[in-house]
Amino acid sequence: MGRWEPNARGRLAEAALELYSERGFEQTTVAEIAGRAGLTERTYFRHYADKREVLFGGIELQDLLVGAAAGAPESLTPIGVLAVGLDAVSEMFEGRRAYARKRQAVITANAELRERELIKLASLSAALAGTLRRRGVPEPAASLTAEAGIAVFKVGFERWLEDSEERGMAPVMRELLDELKAVAGGGPGS
Amino acid sequence: MGRWEPNARGRLAEAALELYSERGFEQTTVAEIAGRAGLTERTYFRHYADKREVLFGGIELQDLLVGAAAGAPESLTPIGVLAVGLDAVSEMFEGRRAYARKRQAVITANAELRERELIKLASLSAALAGTLRRRGVPEPAASLTAEAGIAVFKVGFERWLEDSEERGMAPVMRELLDELKAVAGGGPGS
Repeated sequence: MGRWEPNARGRLAEAALELYSERGFEQTTVAEIAGRAGLTERTYFRHYADKREVLFGGIELQDLLVGAAAGAPESLTPIGVLAVGLDAVSEMFEGRRAYARKRQAVITANAELRERELIKLASLSAALAGTLRRRGVPEPAASLTAEAGIAVFKVGFERWLEDSEERGMAPVMRELLDELKAVAGGGPGS
Repeated sequence: MGRWEPNARGRLAEAALELYSERGFEQTTVAEIAGRAGLTERTYFRHYADKREVLFGGIELQDLLVGAAAGAPESLTPIGVLAVGLDAVSEMFEGRRAYARKRQAVITANAELRERELIKLASLSAALAGTLRRRGVPEPAASLTAEAGIAVFKVGFERWLEDSEERGMAPVMRELLDELKAVAGGGPGS
């Protein structure tokens, strides 16, 4: 087999998700994933460091969210920047709900995968906070907006996966940004 | 050695933190922790499942936050309930900044410990969302408030650790709740 394998990365990710869904994450080996994709283990490890990473490397969520936030109009407030980032992410997930549901079921079933997901989200939050600071947002507003943004994304993503009306992700995220506004601005009560 | 060891749990946690600070997390064994505490490995494993857990089991953050939230006056809004929970947590950390700084330095230096911390925070968020639902807060407000609360706690905790004025944790948390309100209510910009 030659060194040039067209879309090896994508084929490995697809094979891994299939096998993890069929047999479970723990019962699947890298050799089996590579075999299903028609590639070698060596090729697998050129693309992914371990068995977990293959589920997180395909969708470049961080680049997309942070890139959109960095390029948003200067006049936007931090929450406006966040909305632009979430719009970009929502667009990427367009038409990928079935895939996302399958992937999430695999992650939810395994503690190691849930850990890796939490680390990815923490890293996303840190990158987003850095982008906001570079846009001139002071601390703690930058970190807090980033963390609140990840909160909206987490809750919104779950709702989008479960949504019986099969709405797009963008309206779900916008609804949650409004909800955050309502919750945070609600005062302490009487 | 008898089976009754006064405050074994606390002594093990203290010994572990000392050793992790001195030698690093990876270079320390359970036998060494038990030895420093004047206890046996067997006793260690009666109290903690592994080397990581000893850093997270001493402070019952989740019980405290969720307990305070559950017992908060019925008239409070979700964010008001959150404020009550954060006050209770702040009170617990009173006079423990030096300990918390030492512990955080150990956690920050090790990827496995950062993972465990993220899992604890995710579990805290889930428990808090459950408490809010039992108080009649509907979804997605319950999950979003809980996630936003964890966001405030994370950012506030870091600020409190680094605070040069050595303020108590409660005013730092209140400042961040106000900041969340300002950020979330800020509108998208022009």
